[in-house]
Amino acid sequence: MDRERLHQLLDQVAGGEVSTADALEQLAELPYADLGFAKLDLHRELRNGLPEAIYAEGKRTEDLLAIVARMLEAHGRVLVTRVRPEMVAALAAAHPEGAHHERARIWTFGQGAPLPGPPIAVVAAGTSDLPVAEEAAVCLAWFGHTVERGYDVGIAGLHRLLGRLPALRRAGVVIAVAGMDGALPTVVASLVAAPVVAVPTSVGYGASFAGLAPLLTMLNGCAPGIGVVNIDNGYGAAVLASRIARAAPPAA
Amino acid sequence: MDRERLHQLLDQVAGGEVSTADALEQLAELPYADLGFAKLDLHRELRNGLPEAIYAEGKRTEDLLAIVARMLEAHGRVLVTRVRPEMVAALAAAHPEGAHHERARIWTFGQGAPLPGPPIAVVAAGTSDLPVAEEAAVCLAWFGHTVERGYDVGIAGLHRLLGRLPALRRAGVVIAVAGMDGALPTVVASLVAAPVVAVPTSVGYGASFAGLAPLLTMLNGCAPGIGVVNIDNGYGAAVLASRIARAAPPAA
Amino acid sequence: MDRERLHQLLDQVAGGEVSTADALEQLAELPYADLGFAKLDLHRELRNGLPEAIYAEGKRTEDLLAIVARMLEAHGRVLVTRVRPEMVAALAAAHPEGAHHERARIWTFGQGAPLPGPPIAVVAAGTSDLPVAEEAAVCLAWFGHTVERGYDVGIAGLHRLLGRLPALRRAGVVIAVAGMDGALPTVVASLVAAPVVAVPTSVGYGASFAGLAPLLTMLNGCAPGIGVVNIDNGYGAAVLASRIARAAPPAA
Amino acid sequence: MDRERLHQLLDQVAGGEVSTADALEQLAELPYADLGFAKLDLHRELRNGLPEAIYAEGKRTEDLLAIVARMLEAHGRVLVTRVRPEMVAALAAAHPEGAHHERARIWTFGQGAPLPGPPIAVVAAGTSDLPVAEEAAVCLAWFGHTVERGYDVGIAGLHRLLGRLPALRRAGVVIAVAGMDGALPTVVASLVAAPVVAVPTSVGYGASFAGLAPLLTMLNGCAPGIGVVNIDNGYGAAVLASRIARAAPPAA
Amino acid sequence: MDRERLHQLLDQVAGGEVSTADALEQLAELPYADLGFAKLDLHRELRNGLPEAIYAEGKRTEDLLAIVARMLEAHGRVLVTRVRPEMVAALAAAHPEGAHHERARIWTFGQGAPLPGPPIAVVAAGTSDLPVAEEAAVCLAWFGHTVERGYDVGIAGLHRLLGRLPALRRAGVVIAVAGMDGALPTVVASLVAAPVVAVPTSVGYGASFAGLAPLLTMLNGCAPGIGVVNIDNGYGAAVLASRIARAAPPAA
Amino acid sequence: MDRERLHQLLDQVAGGEVSTADALEQLAELPYADLGFAKLDLHRELRNGLPEAIYAEGKRTEDLLAIVARMLEAHGRVLVTRVRPEMVAALAAAHPEGAHHERARIWTFGQGAPLPGPPIAVVAAGTSDLPVAEEAAVCLAWFGHTVERGYDVGIAGLHRLLGRLPALRRAGVVIAVAGMDGALPTVVASLVAAPVVAVPTSVGYGASFAGLAPLLTMLNGCAPGIGVVNIDNGYGAAVLASRIARAAPPAA
Amino acid sequence: MDRERLHQLLDQVAGGEVSTADALEQLAELPYADLGFAKLDLHRELRNGLPEAIYAEGKRTEDLLAIVARMLEAHGRVLVTRVRPEMVAALAAAHPEGAHHERARIWTFGQGAPLPGPPIAVVAAGTSDLPVAEEAAVCLAWFGHTVERGYDVGIAGLHRLLGRLPALRRAGVVIAVAGMDGALPTVVASLVAAPVVAVPTSVGYGASFAGLAPLLTMLNGCAPGIGVVNIDNGYGAAVLASRIARAAPPAA
Amino acid sequence: MDRERLHQLLDQVAGGEVSTADALEQLAELPYADLGFAKLDLHRELRNGLPEAIYAEGKRTEDLLAIVARMLEAHGRVLVTRVRPEMVAALAAAHPEGAHHERARIWTFGQGAPLPGPPIAVVAAGTSDLPVAEEAAVCLAWFGHTVERGYDVGIAGLHRLLGRLPALRRAGVVIAVAGMDGALPTVVASLVAAPVVAVPTSVGYGASFAGLAPLLTMLNGCAPGIGVVNIDNGYGAAVLASRIARAAPPAA
Repeated sequence: MDRERLHQLLDQVAGGEVSTADALEQLAELPYADLGFAKLDLHRELRNGLPEAIYAEGKRTEDLLAIVARMLEAHGRVLVTRVRPEMVAALAAAHPEGAHHERARIWTFGQGAPLPGPPIAVVAAGTSDLPVAEEAAVCLAWFGHTVERGYDVGIAGLHRLLGRLPALRRAGVVIAVAGMDGALPTVVASLVAAPVVAVPTSVGYGASFAGLAPLLTMLNGCAPGIGVVNIDNGYGAAVLASRIARAAPPAA
Repeated sequence: MDRERLHQLLDQVAGGEVSTADALEQLAELPYADLGFAKLDLHRELRNGLPEAIYAEGKRTEDLLAIVARMLEAHGRVLVTRVRPEMVAALAAAHPEGAHHERARIWTFGQGAPLPGPPIAVVAAGTSDLPVAEEAAVCLAWFGHTVERGYDVGIAGLHRLLGRLPALRRAGVVIAVAGMDGALPTVVASLVAAPVVAVPTSVGYGASFAGLAPLLTMLNGCAPGIGVVNIDNGYGAAVLASRIARAAPPAA
Repeated sequence: MDRERLHQLLDQVAGGEVSTADALEQLAELPYADLGFAKLDLHRELRNGLPEAIYAEGKRTEDLLAIVARMLEAHGRVLVTRVRPEMVAALAAAHPEGAHHERARIWTFGQGAPLPGPPIAVVAAGTSDLPVAEEAAVCLAWFGHTVERGYDVGIAGLHRLLGRLPALRRAGVVIAVAGMDGALPTVVASLVAAPVVAVPTSVGYGASFAGLAPLLTMLNGCAPGIGVVNIDNGYGAAVLASRIARAAPPAA
Repeated sequence: MDRERLHQLLDQVAGGEVSTADALEQLAELPYADLGFAKLDLHRELRNGLPEAIYAEGKRTEDLLAIVARMLEAHGRVLVTRVRPEMVAALAAAHPEGAHHERARIWTFGQGAPLPGPPIAVVAAGTSDLPVAEEAAVCLAWFGHTVERGYDVGIAGLHRLLGRLPALRRAGVVIAVAGMDGALPTVVASLVAAPVVAVPTSVGYGASFAGLAPLLTMLNGCAPGIGVVNIDNGYGAAVLASRIARAAPPAA
Repeated sequence: MDRERLHQLLDQVAGGEVSTADALEQLAELPYADLGFAKLDLHRELRNGLPEAIYAEGKRTEDLLAIVARMLEAHGRVLVTRVRPEMVAALAAAHPEGAHHERARIWTFGQGAPLPGPPIAVVAAGTSDLPVAEEAAVCLAWFGHTVERGYDVGIAGLHRLLGRLPALRRAGVVIAVAGMDGALPTVVASLVAAPVVAVPTSVGYGASFAGLAPLLTMLNGCAPGIGVVNIDNGYGAAVLASRIARAAPPAA
Repeated sequence: MDRERLHQLLDQVAGGEVSTADALEQLAELPYADLGFAKLDLHRELRNGLPEAIYAEGKRTEDLLAIVARMLEAHGRVLVTRVRPEMVAALAAAHPEGAHHERARIWTFGQGAPLPGPPIAVVAAGTSDLPVAEEAAVCLAWFGHTVERGYDVGIAGLHRLLGRLPALRRAGVVIAVAGMDGALPTVVASLVAAPVVAVPTSVGYGASFAGLAPLLTMLNGCAPGIGVVNIDNGYGAAVLASRIARAAPPAA
Repeated sequence: MDRERLHQLLDQVAGGEVSTADALEQLAELPYADLGFAKLDLHRELRNGLPEAIYAEGKRTEDLLAIVARMLEAHGRVLVTRVRPEMVAALAAAHPEGAHHERARIWTFGQGAPLPGPPIAVVAAGTSDLPVAEEAAVCLAWFGHTVERGYDVGIAGLHRLLGRLPALRRAGVVIAVAGMDGALPTVVASLVAAPVVAVPTSVGYGASFAGLAPLLTMLNGCAPGIGVVNIDNGYGAAVLASRIARAAPPAA
Repeated sequence: MDRERLHQLLDQVAGGEVSTADALEQLAELPYADLGFAKLDLHRELRNGLPEAIYAEGKRTEDLLAIVARMLEAHGRVLVTRVRPEMVAALAAAHPEGAHHERARIWTFGQGAPLPGPPIAVVAAGTSDLPVAEEAAVCLAWFGHTVERGYDVGIAGLHRLLGRLPALRRAGVVIAVAGMDGALPTVVASLVAAPVVAVPTSVGYGASFAGLAPLLTMLNGCAPGIGVVNIDNGYGAAVLASRIARAAPPAA
């Protein structure tokens, strides 16, 4: 799967250092740790640039603790999204140095080394969009990015957004979070030159249809330069923004 | 149905001027002209303030001609929406003084008397929204209103909209037409104090889903003061705007 | 953003009364109060004619108290929609003079000055539509309008609606609230000359699909003159109706 | 399948008149005629009270001719819905005594014997709903029912419907056809005591979504007593209405 | 609205027995009782053949008690659907002679006089469809009809349905209730000559989408003669079936 | 219905061993046991190769106990899906030898005899898909199949799936369970020659729309050889896989 | 990707027969032929048991000719689905021995060797479903399977289906094709023990929504043992059925 | 709107170089050229980094020619998407040096200066996705980027994609285009560290629902790092990819 790794392995096989059977074994078994109920992708950081995060939704607390322990052993740091209160208590008992980010529903241990490059801006249209925006912001900070927050800047009061414009223009990427009409990312994309990551939220009256309305708005934004992620998916927005921020060409 | 008319009729029955049987007859039969295949609501102007318009879609040309003739006989003026080219030819032959409004797909004969009050603004986000915007504008003019057009003012270039702001602020009502993200009415509603009539159009890439995307955006607009009409329904927007403009309180 | 304000500011800059840097500062910062987690749009009344209301859904009680306090400081009155019982208790403790409107799920403090013009009618199809209808009615009263209520007048018993016809004909605007088939606004629009604001509700059996059915009915109403707002959005209907009622031309 | 037939067959087997093998043969093979590409259900009239109609959509003209010939041989009469012009020409050439009902897109040969009972009313909201309404009316007449038509009686002009009320009240069943808001069946059901068969049509502006809007309206009608059939399905409405009209209890 | 009533009233006005003003008063006010929060349609039995039922969903217990009391005063009997346990307790306390039908979630007081005509069959595909089927059956019995129940006869075991065939063939109308694939009504309609009332239920795995799947199946049933009502709407099915059963032609 | 059975019965009737009336009786009544509220299809194993399973959702505990008792009497073994904790307690009390499979939400008594043939593989994309995958696996084991589990092998880490490839290639059928993007079955179908049964799950962020997204992905899979079952329907997947595994041609 | 191939390649590398660089080259390049605009998967037969078919929809005729030529060179036989008339002419000119299957919209050259095992049955509900059913049947025959066709056996006339029951019971797999209500696969699955492949078609009146209705019916079928493929996808059904038929356990 | 421009303008006003009235005039009027039917956003390159492209869909040829002429005057280069054949002829006549990109449905004049940085990869799943992929690739080349194409690499033959892996790993951004199951972007995102721009296409069988299926798959991709654009929107993907490629941090 991993061509460089495969290349090296084939070289070792060719050199007689590794037998064919062992090579096959390694190829399929090496890159993850099998806990029985889960297979941890310890290899992901090498392949994709970011370690795997743990999505707590639908997991049992004891399973989560086992996964966290194994990830800490492998990486020395871990990020858990969508933690429930009882999980936080168990995690705090096991790892007192960990940190709980309440609004973001995230628990972290350790932190990525500071990354170079311009800050990443996270703007949200309304106060109800805060949990999703904070999920993105906390993830970005844990990855090592500098984050600029700008909340409650929806287009019902354009001047509030304009007040954030200088900060938005300094950012290398902008994450724009909005429910209801979902128009914020389009307006932002028309005002800045940076790529915009759009996150629809499930906030709103009936015909928002749990986020379908802002999702469609963002996909149909008349100002190009917007990439849309799933409804309420602050974590996904952070990963995409981080990939973008790290996509810089090597300094000549 | 019509209480005043009923009152008068009952008085006449009470006074012996009209028999019971005749009253019943009149109640059910009077207000429309029956062409067999259609019943023309000649009464609508009295009841709702505007004569019935003719929606040409799905009608035969000969039926349309018959309806137009009967309406002209009753009112002296008529407005036909969604006319097809062959209909226009037939109408022009029968009524050379009529006018064809090509972009709006409308044919008119005569015109309403000028109505007092502030102008009604019609703004459209993109050039593809013009047919719908023109349908609204031509109807309004035929009703007797003053119309202010402002086209290609979508939020991908907010300065184009801001250039129209003084005109928008003078308007008693604003009709905002948009496809794609459909965010224009929300931005307009945040900038003016007048009521905004929002018209989604079926223009756009795939996930517009034939106008569903801007429709949902408009219903979920985070700035209140917006009333939404059906997709591509410029005529409906004009009628609503006209009702609003004529809803003024009697000068004390 | 606000052209008049900008005009004045530019004059001051031109006159040397305000420096360029200060002007920029004011342009972006002046019109709202930043509470950190929220930016209050203290300017909205000047711009749109109505002060910003507070939508309590998804807010914390302590945040709501802070916002209410700041709004009262700025305006002397405030309206909060979708209040939960625990919020009402906290608000009552902090502001004993405030009023709780239970059916409408609204808390208010103070009231707008009485506004001139004809009454605004609020009609609802069934008893289950009452919370939404009351949300609209309480908002209108707080804005300063005279309100005429007519409830349980759905088209399953047309005579109940006809009994309200004289009141409907006196109104400058009619708000029609309906779930299930959502046909009430269309019937009302065919009987009166005033603009009709239609509010679908999420009441009904399965295939209402949480309000989608009445929403589509209202958008497709065969009688024109109807502006539709979001499902269950009584507040939005009130703001639109208020804008319409205040859209009167200046008395010559 | 057919219990009475099975009963008789079993009696014959028991009586030695029919062998077991023959019985099986008859059970599976008897009731239809196999044309290779189609199996004609010659048995349906006995089972369901009405002969099978031919739905021409998607059939080849030569196949249709073969089917019609076989049905005429079996029943002496036939009804074909959704005929295309080239089919009509071929049918007319082969069976000059057949009749083409243009608006209804139906071709018939022969006719059912007159059926007793009250007339069946067919009402349609707008002129665009005529093809569907006529499909229902022509089918009913061919079945042998007396039909009362009332077209262009939509709720935008309630008085037009009220003018038809006495005729509606005389009907044993009412078929109500409507596109757009689809409110006509609900209003009819609130005014008469007979069962109402509701047919949504695909006529209308964008948010009708090809008939979805009136379909949902009819399913959610607040006046009970309505049975809904598929969009544009005039034939299905006629069959249901005919079954209802023939569901009379045996005269004591 | 009610033509006969209107006729009589006009006669009285013509005869001087009733003044014009009184007539108007009566016209709009007579047929319902206004409880403030609700308007009871005491007139419905005369107009539609069945008294209005009370839909308890979303009502307060005290309001329900008031409505029930007023209905009993007017009619001497009442039927309440979708009663909650606390309502049942309150109703039992106030009216000990009333009856609670637990599976059907219905409370009744009194009963309609037995109606002539053939029985009405109620069949349900699975045990989970029982609450909806029982809602229909209890309503029918209360109206005065004879009811034949046949439950758990879904098409996964066709022989179970065939075992009910003789009973189905005796029925004047068949109500077929089904969730999941919703195919039961189509199969029934192909086996009997009576009209079939189809009720989709919200029972089933994920892609049933809360009843959408059986609803669409029933609308698309390839055997004609089916009228569909709303999802889970057993009451509506009963009213339609009752109207059908009472639609018999006058005995010659 | 059952041709062989019918054949035999007809022979008995022909031979005079069974009377016509008795035959009819047997035909309709024999194959199921009627508990009043449910009809148990005791015949299903003969007809379809597997005994009927009990779907506990929406059943009362006492009804479930009665059904289980009757099934055990007829078959000596039973499988109940979607059991709730209180049901498990009651079942354990009545049948202590039964087994509860917690993750799978299944209760079983007895077990099918081991079936010949290759193993059936059950793979799941994420840990949240485990309940559905386990429902399938436990059913298969109870039917008598050998099961190979492979969990947490989603395409976000293709190497985890490749590690299971040899096991997948040995399987006669593969059940692939996935939520979110639902791409696992397509990738599996491109790598193995066996048929793939795809099960979408309702796991995921907002725009999964409760399983609609993976359902559509699976239906549109660009690698053919996939049969899709309902969302979260592990039981249905097991039955289909079992039918496939038992569809072997008779050894020559 | 292909483990056996990888195993062999690794052995060759280990044995020095193949260099590391060559191995990599082969791994990525070998299994397909690159025509520039398309990459032909010549390897698929080895991997999945069936050669890749050509889907002509949206291809240019000259591209199709090039692809067919290359496939014939590699395999000596080819199957093209969804051919348009102009393609057929060009294919016939280039390869006169090829065969055109008109109803199925398929062009084939050569044929697979006869495969052992029981026949595969293809049944279709109505005559309009024939093109899809024929697409499946022609593909199966080309793969080498014996096919049993049974058309026009929809559930509106159950006896027509019952007449095919013995043939269905002999089949190793049944493909059931249906539009409209889509109930045929469920009824078939309740009558046979073989796995059923269900194919919804886009045939039907309005609320079929281009095949959505039968698709949902099939996913929700109350008789388990059904695997659903995409709307109108006869080819996909054939591949799945073929995989199932070839999934037989090795004869002991 | 444009803060820098506003800053400069305010300085000029402060310095007396520009009058207040002129400043207002410039603010609203400067940045676009008004052609009456369209307002060209000549300012966009400065604001967003890329000049405005012309979307030809729904425009008249003469309007397009006027817009192109004005854009060439302002920028010296222009890009037109979705050109129809008759437009290409007219453009070629007016501007013989322009270039037509047939598969991409694009017409260009001139070209952007080469941009530094790594190449941008464009991969497509099937040959039917080529028009959309080419739209993206041609736009990128015109912007000045180096483009790496890789077509027909869908996941039905993973080895075809793996053959492109080295090229994908060299890219700074990857645009992945796919219809049907839409799984390609997810697989790509799991194999590379660069951001992935996902474009769903409307290619596929029925249940693709014109691109909805791949759209949902992409939004729900289990590998993070994907930004989704509208269905078939190759141009939007190119703009987003270009923004990302130009978002590099300034070399230290």
